Amino acid sequence: MNVLVVNAGSSSLKYQLVNVEQQKLLAKGICERVGSSGAFHKHGLDENEHVLDAEMKDHDAAMALVIDALLDGPTKAIDSLDEIDAIGHRVVQGGKYFDKSALIDDDVIAKIDELAELAPLHNKAALMGIHACQKLMPNVPMVAVFDTSFFQTLPPKAYMYPLPYEMYEKHAIRKYGAHGTSHRYVAERAAVVLGEPLDELKLITCHLGNGCSASAIDHGVAVDTSMGLTPLDGLMMGTRCGAIDPAIVPFIMEHEGLTTSEVNDLMNKKSGLLGISGISNDLRSVKEASEQGHERAQLAYDMYSNSVKKYIGQYIAVMGGVDAIVLTAGVGENCEKMRRMIFSGLQPLGIVLDEEKNRHRGFEREISSDDSRVKIIVIPTNEEYMIARDTYEIVYAKSQLVEA
Amino acid sequence: MNVLVVNAGSSSLKYQLVNVEQQKLLAKGICERVGSSGAFHKHGLDENEHVLDAEMKDHDAAMALVIDALLDGPTKAIDSLDEIDAIGHRVVQGGKYFDKSALIDDDVIAKIDELAELAPLHNKAALMGIHACQKLMPNVPMVAVFDTSFFQTLPPKAYMYPLPYEMYEKHAIRKYGAHGTSHRYVAERAAVVLGEPLDELKLITCHLGNGCSASAIDHGVAVDTSMGLTPLDGLMMGTRCGAIDPAIVPFIMEHEGLTTSEVNDLMNKKSGLLGISGISNDLRSVKEASEQGHERAQLAYDMYSNSVKKYIGQYIAVMGGVDAIVLTAGVGENCEKMRRMIFSGLQPLGIVLDEEKNRHRGFEREISSDDSRVKIIVIPTNEEYMIARDTYEIVYAKSQLVEA
Repeated sequence: MNVLVVNAGSSSLKYQLVNVEQQKLLAKGICERVGSSGAFHKHGLDENEHVLDAEMKDHDAAMALVIDALLDGPTKAIDSLDEIDAIGHRVVQGGKYFDKSALIDDDVIAKIDELAELAPLHNKAALMGIHACQKLMPNVPMVAVFDTSFFQTLPPKAYMYPLPYEMYEKHAIRKYGAHGTSHRYVAERAAVVLGEPLDELKLITCHLGNGCSASAIDHGVAVDTSMGLTPLDGLMMGTRCGAIDPAIVPFIMEHEGLTTSEVNDLMNKKSGLLGISGISNDLRSVKEASEQGHERAQLAYDMYSNSVKKYIGQYIAVMGGVDAIVLTAGVGENCEKMRRMIFSGLQPLGIVLDEEKNRHRGFEREISSDDSRVKIIVIPTNEEYMIARDTYEIVYAKSQLVEA
Repeated sequence: MNVLVVNAGSSSLKYQLVNVEQQKLLAKGICERVGSSGAFHKHGLDENEHVLDAEMKDHDAAMALVIDALLDGPTKAIDSLDEIDAIGHRVVQGGKYFDKSALIDDDVIAKIDELAELAPLHNKAALMGIHACQKLMPNVPMVAVFDTSFFQTLPPKAYMYPLPYEMYEKHAIRKYGAHGTSHRYVAERAAVVLGEPLDELKLITCHLGNGCSASAIDHGVAVDTSMGLTPLDGLMMGTRCGAIDPAIVPFIMEHEGLTTSEVNDLMNKKSGLLGISGISNDLRSVKEASEQGHERAQLAYDMYSNSVKKYIGQYIAVMGGVDAIVLTAGVGENCEKMRRMIFSGLQPLGIVLDEEKNRHRGFEREISSDDSRVKIIVIPTNEEYMIARDTYEIVYAKSQLVEA
């Protein structure tokens, strides 16, 4: 079964065509600056990538270009649209409605729309992607895969904020989490690497990219996670501050004369590594500068590693121990030095990094020393594969039902 | 040496007269509702307490009443003001200026005033107490003891928030901590109980009262603490929410139409145990209700214990282990059930509560089981004694200097 995986942002459309049974990537690409000038479409697998400047007035137009590129030209991947068996859409916010991926129908669309209040840019964008596909491929079944659904197992003591209870009743203010598809994927793969069933393991998964989140996964069930009502909560990130003294928010608004939207902007786009270093939101640049003696870059680097270390400690306490700590995404997969800093000093907790293994790059691998009681594992994330697989499972189950 | 310990709030004046060498409490009391109608003055030791309704138009008037009660009447403690050798003032915010207690002079007063921006109500109140004493006892040396100074040893990675660096430069936004006098006191006492030098221990101290804070004290040096720019940061408390997704602040402001001061009020006075339970900010009432099946009270109770548990885990990671966890203040000293919940499930981390010892009430005591690798210790806090002792040391050192 071929699944088209669609990840629509407010001005972008990212996609992959995946053959699920063969776990084979058939095509991939991205449309950028959709709806503005300077739009372009990058399409094709690594060795055969083509970039095309093209007007795209909206997501419908972008999706039409994607279909053209899949069917024709130097990057042709399929002969006809009939070869797309299903479409899987990434949706950021599934709120309380979705504890797993869902076959898209009018009701699901209405709920995604209703939840847009909790993730205004993201859910509206996902709907644009869904509508574009509906128009161009009206008979292809579609599935919504939510960033939040993996965390619907959190107990109330983990998902509630200690605010007036009415804030939860009136505005649904609670922790929803994010990056759930990634955490779910790497947890499954970590169990495979460890050779033990997921439901017998205590795992801490750390997704460290430009956005960062950590999760406590106890016997296969997510019991806590760092992202909250929004993806601003929790760890320090590339441009986001994570959890801070909430009194700082009104303090800054008063002292800087900012509106709510401006202070949101400051915390989401001008903070984190970028805010402290003044150099970049990219850990690689911050690392380089720190190695050249840039003090604020060094501070940013230290704060970032300290933030991850604290969440690891937190989740060890929450689960009463941990069998393995899993790292993924840009920083987690690639930054040897950051990994060394995160785990430095944790030997008394039975967590020992192997310096030699930590240097290797590559696929899924254990990087803890042989005598480390807690295993440390690097797993390259693959959210698209998870979306394709969920889509496959739901559509296949439905087709079986219809035949029966 | 007799030290008058003064803790001035915006509408209250709390005090103790302490003989430092003998560690003896000579008198204590509180003036409440200073500056409003219904003011009263409670004075005397437990067995001999007198309450007097009395007009007090300001802190000067309140201090005059205090002096009257010390010198005369049924609660007389001294024969003349000459028997007050020094005065120690509690000051909430010492900012970056004070890494220890300081002899009060014009410069110190100016700095306390300057720092009022970071703790508006508190520092102004302390100044009112200082000025009242200056007027009535102009020749008595005075010392300021700061809630924050113990935490001036925090490394930048712990005290900086991942916000734009200019927020620190322009507005001094950073973590200052609070309850420092309490954390310092219980850490010292814990070392005595353990029979080991403080500078060889890794301690986590938890001050759990209506306000709550936790600190990591590594070899006698505070390396992290949960309260931040303000005492709103960190743990869930009686009426305060602690650290949350900061995006919730603008979200609530927009959805409820609140100003910055109103949202501060919501987070400081209507959240925490009170906000979740809807019953009380007092853990005893919340516990009772939860035992009668009140679901939100149970939730509040669970969230509170979970919040403490997470900070314990965090600081274990920060220090790479812990020798003892110290509990103090109302909840920490008295709530057997909360202690049981905080430590439940932490056996794999070498932290084992002794059920039997946990039931005892009394003075300083160890409540971990004999085979617990990490000791759990209850220490009743005594901030007033710390203030008296600091005052004694500074004033005594000064007198030696003058004589020499």
